[in-house]
Amino acid sequence: MKTFAFIVTLLVSSAAAAQVLPSWNDGAAKQGIVEFVKAVTAKGGKELVRPADSIAVFDNDGTLWSEQPLYFQFVFMLDQVKASGGPMPDPHDQKALLAAMGKATSGMTVAEYDRKIRDWLAKERHPKFKRPYTDLVYKPMQELLAYLRANGFKTFIVSGGSVEFMRPWAEKAYGIPPEQVVGSSGKIKYEMTAGRPALMRLAEVDFIDDGAGKPVGILRHIGRRPIFAFGNSDGDLEMLQWTAAGAGARFCLFVHHDDAKREWAYDRDSKIGRLDKELDEAKVHGWTVTSMKDDWKTVYVGAR
Amino acid sequence: MKTFAFIVTLLVSSAAAAQVLPSWNDGAAKQGIVEFVKAVTAKGGKELVRPADSIAVFDNDGTLWSEQPLYFQFVFMLDQVKASGGPMPDPHDQKALLAAMGKATSGMTVAEYDRKIRDWLAKERHPKFKRPYTDLVYKPMQELLAYLRANGFKTFIVSGGSVEFMRPWAEKAYGIPPEQVVGSSGKIKYEMTAGRPALMRLAEVDFIDDGAGKPVGILRHIGRRPIFAFGNSDGDLEMLQWTAAGAGARFCLFVHHDDAKREWAYDRDSKIGRLDKELDEAKVHGWTVTSMKDDWKTVYVGAR
Repeated sequence: MKTFAFIVTLLVSSAAAAQVLPSWNDGAAKQGIVEFVKAVTAKGGKELVRPADSIAVFDNDGTLWSEQPLYFQFVFMLDQVKASGGPMPDPHDQKALLAAMGKATSGMTVAEYDRKIRDWLAKERHPKFKRPYTDLVYKPMQELLAYLRANGFKTFIVSGGSVEFMRPWAEKAYGIPPEQVVGSSGKIKYEMTAGRPALMRLAEVDFIDDGAGKPVGILRHIGRRPIFAFGNSDGDLEMLQWTAAGAGARFCLFVHHDDAKREWAYDRDSKIGRLDKELDEAKVHGWTVTSMKDDWKTVYVGAR
Repeated sequence: MKTFAFIVTLLVSSAAAAQVLPSWNDGAAKQGIVEFVKAVTAKGGKELVRPADSIAVFDNDGTLWSEQPLYFQFVFMLDQVKASGGPMPDPHDQKALLAAMGKATSGMTVAEYDRKIRDWLAKERHPKFKRPYTDLVYKPMQELLAYLRANGFKTFIVSGGSVEFMRPWAEKAYGIPPEQVVGSSGKIKYEMTAGRPALMRLAEVDFIDDGAGKPVGILRHIGRRPIFAFGNSDGDLEMLQWTAAGAGARFCLFVHHDDAKREWAYDRDSKIGRLDKELDEAKVHGWTVTSMKDDWKTVYVGAR
């Protein structure tokens, strides 16, 4: 019986090894991830981290799904401003866009706004791929999230995007529930109207969860320092710095968009998802670069 | 074998029934809780709620632990203001106290502040009971939190207290991890000093998670409407209203402090934890009143 059980264990674990991150090519990125996870989960190991502290944070735009030719949420926002008849802001001027959006949607309940987002995502198609935006979720990242959770990690999104825009689909796309989505937010007011309570959107921005705001968002919302952080642009730099500066084993990496054929190729000069300082800091700190072109067998969850 | 298994099942389940909420006396409150949990977890039942949506929220001060003669966090804050040499504010003037506290602790890193809280809780004793403050956690509530989690609920604290003050001990006391503690917070700034990143406390208040702020805090942090809410004062009224107004089965209740012998007796006229409007609304909406005197066999986790 013992021998039999041993053989079964061997078979199961070798099958499991083959199945780990199947959309990732063998290479430094995949190897680094798997070795880190082994190190922090090895019983009795020097770098063991208890599951409660195994916090993994992921940027969203450009890290978990595409962000070109314009952040998908910005396309949604421009559509809302247009529908409201307001003057159209420069889509690359975030401040102007947020102000216009505040005007266009203030006085709406959060339930009405949620409905608008769901309807928009169901109906709209990406201009280049002619597919629903949620088809442009990265398959290798979906696998990575599941792999981390299977190893006791708790996975969070920490994004410059708004919580309202991500929560309706993050659970299905990433297995990440609403309460594990950290993001930007506008001010909200509780109101009782005709005996029915409602949460109303106000025009002002409340919090921008980007750049130096990311460690603040992490502190507020999660209250523990992550041990694993994955980004793709300079907006993630402080999140990676904050993660890396913790005691004990930490793992930081980012997606390098170098795949003009299957996705896009951009970094230091891009208006969207600029990756410049982070490329330099990665070398200094030994953060792992994930090359979309070389490290990923498949890019999208939507078959292509 | 079948008969034997059947008998074992019977024994186990009757033992389990006897063990449900052992510090609660049989009565309307306990019965209401158990019936609600059965209704939302019964397979194929009309009121079944999937675990992901089974969000339970609890106020902290006066609901999960005592709050007299002064919110314990206020005692801590007064000690910090005193130590800083600042002028002492009226302890019942929350605005003045927060302003004094902002001055006393701004420029401190969040790590330094966390250390102060842990040291204070380890050292200080409650003036009446001469015990650590964390001994004044309510045993029946500790059991209720565990019971809900055993039935697939996700439990959150939603408190007017600050996240920083609660997180260091909430996991041990309540089984609630830092990322499930929603509360008030001050503004925080990310700073890089001599190559080391730090999160610094600023003097300004960022968010007050009390009264009409509670549904806002719930939206921001949890992103789903709770199905179960437990409070004890008018500061919880909007949280209960918001919970109760959702579609499907909902359960709202609060602790009535009517036990002058084992704890305190106070409601409509109290400066701390005033329970006035909520007592009236409870009658209108059929919210369940938990009488500390009648419903709880034991009050505190710290043996007395």
